[in-house]
Amino acid sequence: MCWPLAEHARPGTDLSRVTGMVLVHDLVEIDAGDLFLYADREQQERQEIAERAAADRIFALLPAEQGSVLRHLWDEFTARQSPEAKFARALDRLQPMLENLAAGGGSWQRHGITADRVLANVRLIEDGSPSLGALARNVVKRAVAAGFLAPAPA
Amino acid sequence: MCWPLAEHARPGTDLSRVTGMVLVHDLVEIDAGDLFLYADREQQERQEIAERAAADRIFALLPAEQGSVLRHLWDEFTARQSPEAKFARALDRLQPMLENLAAGGGSWQRHGITADRVLANVRLIEDGSPSLGALARNVVKRAVAAGFLAPAPA
Repeated sequence: MCWPLAEHARPGTDLSRVTGMVLVHDLVEIDAGDLFLYADREQQERQEIAERAAADRIFALLPAEQGSVLRHLWDEFTARQSPEAKFARALDRLQPMLENLAAGGGSWQRHGITADRVLANVRLIEDGSPSLGALARNVVKRAVAAGFLAPAPA
Repeated sequence: MCWPLAEHARPGTDLSRVTGMVLVHDLVEIDAGDLFLYADREQQERQEIAERAAADRIFALLPAEQGSVLRHLWDEFTARQSPEAKFARALDRLQPMLENLAAGGGSWQRHGITADRVLANVRLIEDGSPSLGALARNVVKRAVAAGFLAPAPA
């Protein structure tokens, strides 16, 4: 995703750091297990603790100097302050939306997620890339029109 | 592998191109199916045709300009002429050796592969990185000593 969508990053974005962040964040999620985006606050807090423990474990497997480079990338991804981290997080959030659209609803339908909740998450995509944010809004519109996503809670 | 082992690449190696090559070659292998390294010549020729067809299909999914960037990376990986491609191919070949050592024999044992055949493949690793080549020779030595790998055909 990072390479073909590079034109949607802000000018000057260091794409090799974005690639590193998306790879490194997956290592942590493989170890800690991923969490459904719309989990409740308590689950999210448990997940944050599990991911931090996983990061502590994984990056400490490397010699200190190398471990700290990768740990720094993961911290940067998590903090979402740099343009690179914002773009990486936007990609990470856009990806399941594209999958759900392609799958005719996917996890949105299984968990009864409605368009208003998806749109609340689009803000993070917009923050990383205005044009990908616009694309994400369009994905929601198409999913609602196709009946894959309910517009609002019944 | 690419990042923590970067110090074993020749000075001046462009690591973001190496990362791109290892990612892109996996896309093609996912599509075409991977082949066991010690398959016979006929299987290898069939595999080459299948991978080229997969590459033609996958990279053509992108707009022409983007597709040609990724296709070029894949062609570079396949041709194994540039220092980046040689290093990427060395990583790709080292990885199953580390897995087989960790697994107590793995695919070497299942297919009755002997150390002489593994050592013939170490040359490609050496060509990409002399120090990783030395490490690979050591992996073979340890695997033989541990009884995970037969030294020569019975």
